Amino acid sequence: MSQTDIQEYYDFILPLVLDAGKILLDAKDIKGELKNGLDCDFVTLFDTKIEDKLKKQITASYPNHKFIGEEESSAKNEWSLTNDPTWIIDPIDGTENFMRKLRLSCISVAMTINKEQVFGIVYNPHMDELFSAIKDKGAYLNGQRIYTTGQTDYTQSLFNYEISMGRMGTYFYNLYMFRLKHLLPKVMGVRCFGCAALGLCYVACGRFDAYQCDGLYPWDAAAGTLIVREAGGFVIDSSGKEFDLMKPNFLATSSRELAQDYLEIERIADMEMNEAVKRNQAFVP
Amino acid sequence: MSQTDIQEYYDFILPLVLDAGKILLDAKDIKGELKNGLDCDFVTLFDTKIEDKLKKQITASYPNHKFIGEEESSAKNEWSLTNDPTWIIDPIDGTENFMRKLRLSCISVAMTINKEQVFGIVYNPHMDELFSAIKDKGAYLNGQRIYTTGQTDYTQSLFNYEISMGRMGTYFYNLYMFRLKHLLPKVMGVRCFGCAALGLCYVACGRFDAYQCDGLYPWDAAAGTLIVREAGGFVIDSSGKEFDLMKPNFLATSSRELAQDYLEIERIADMEMNEAVKRNQAFVP
Repeated sequence: MSQTDIQEYYDFILPLVLDAGKILLDAKDIKGELKNGLDCDFVTLFDTKIEDKLKKQITASYPNHKFIGEEESSAKNEWSLTNDPTWIIDPIDGTENFMRKLRLSCISVAMTINKEQVFGIVYNPHMDELFSAIKDKGAYLNGQRIYTTGQTDYTQSLFNYEISMGRMGTYFYNLYMFRLKHLLPKVMGVRCFGCAALGLCYVACGRFDAYQCDGLYPWDAAAGTLIVREAGGFVIDSSGKEFDLMKPNFLATSSRELAQDYLEIERIADMEMNEAVKRNQAFVP
Repeated sequence: MSQTDIQEYYDFILPLVLDAGKILLDAKDIKGELKNGLDCDFVTLFDTKIEDKLKKQITASYPNHKFIGEEESSAKNEWSLTNDPTWIIDPIDGTENFMRKLRLSCISVAMTINKEQVFGIVYNPHMDELFSAIKDKGAYLNGQRIYTTGQTDYTQSLFNYEISMGRMGTYFYNLYMFRLKHLLPKVMGVRCFGCAALGLCYVACGRFDAYQCDGLYPWDAAAGTLIVREAGGFVIDSSGKEFDLMKPNFLATSSRELAQDYLEIERIADMEMNEAVKRNQAFVP
């Protein structure tokens, strides 16, 4: 696949994403329904409407392309990446924020070719902010090149941590509580904004220095992690292993050094958690 | 003091606050300095500029009025409320967000007469949102009447909790960690937005159901707590005592019932914390 093809797909999808943003802006009577058997994962009619619309438009032009989309893939609970051009779509990331009119929700669209992320687009119509990146061509906010802060000192870092994810069962509850216990006194500040794609883009443009989330899905991370890397940031699995887009437990930071220090703190937290679980003294709700 | 006077003071200050908002919007080269001997409490030149400007304008028209303002009062580390008309000013609430261009910062101005909050104004120029309330006359967002969600079920509640405040020393660290431990599995979701005045206003307009913060100052809470109450919400000290504006540790909720359930959960958390501290097993960093 040539660079020309990638640019063609990017140019094709960009106006369609901007247009789909109007669905978020015009939404009235937003009602959420719980999905995936979890009591904290919402879907609205608008999620389905945007995903269906984008897929229909893409299929009309590129009938052989593949999809991994939040609503369809999560309903089937299966997704896998092939070498084909694949569109990874989150029609509304931050659905609970969207339902609450918190302005921190967005459409996230990424493409992979040969299993590699080749571009990412994250559009928040509520603030008219378009984050984008094409592989090896840098990251942009509304057409302006963006960079991470480059921060390397964790004591000066502003950290976005999605503590709400600790509600997804005992394992995640312990994981988030033990890591927070160790990170909270060491960083400059903590935020929980409740939108993964925007959290990643905010690391890319320097609003946060670090963002971490365990327990998410490919469509939450596909565009944002590329945007972080293209802005000079660093993305790694929160266990310290290589980041795996199909099982994204990511730590995204302004610099490699910052990630290393966070990971070191978290290994101590995780060891303490494992010991506490063995002794039956973990944070059981 | 008559209702006419209160309306006069409100009408006098409103355009001045809107005008001061331009200072936030136009700010360039924002540099923060740490203050109050804490390693997480910032002030910028813009905080001082806005507070000085508003005080000068008020004094020119009302030379006998009193002030409690973040920058002057916190520098002296003293403030007290008299029966005189008193302006309680936070020139920039959410200074760290402001430094990071996170759009969640605002100007907060309230007035007390006979020690009672008579009006509150919270203006976020980054989103052009003006929250306001005059006592007994309801709460407004950009001129539209607002109400809390009225939510009474904590399992359905979205909770804003300023976990960063757990960085202010061992007491607060334990308080926040133990309360989070108990609240996290019980509520629908947790956010940390990092701006007290806006957090309160977001309860008032139904974006959050509950907001809690221990360890703040009068200027963080003076406008927002009145706006919550005028929107039909409930404000209480997080210990369960009556809310004290001069020592604001507030729990602000969409309804009285919701506050009672939160307080019950937190009393269990606080007991566990006190026991753990005695046994030397608290969350010592």
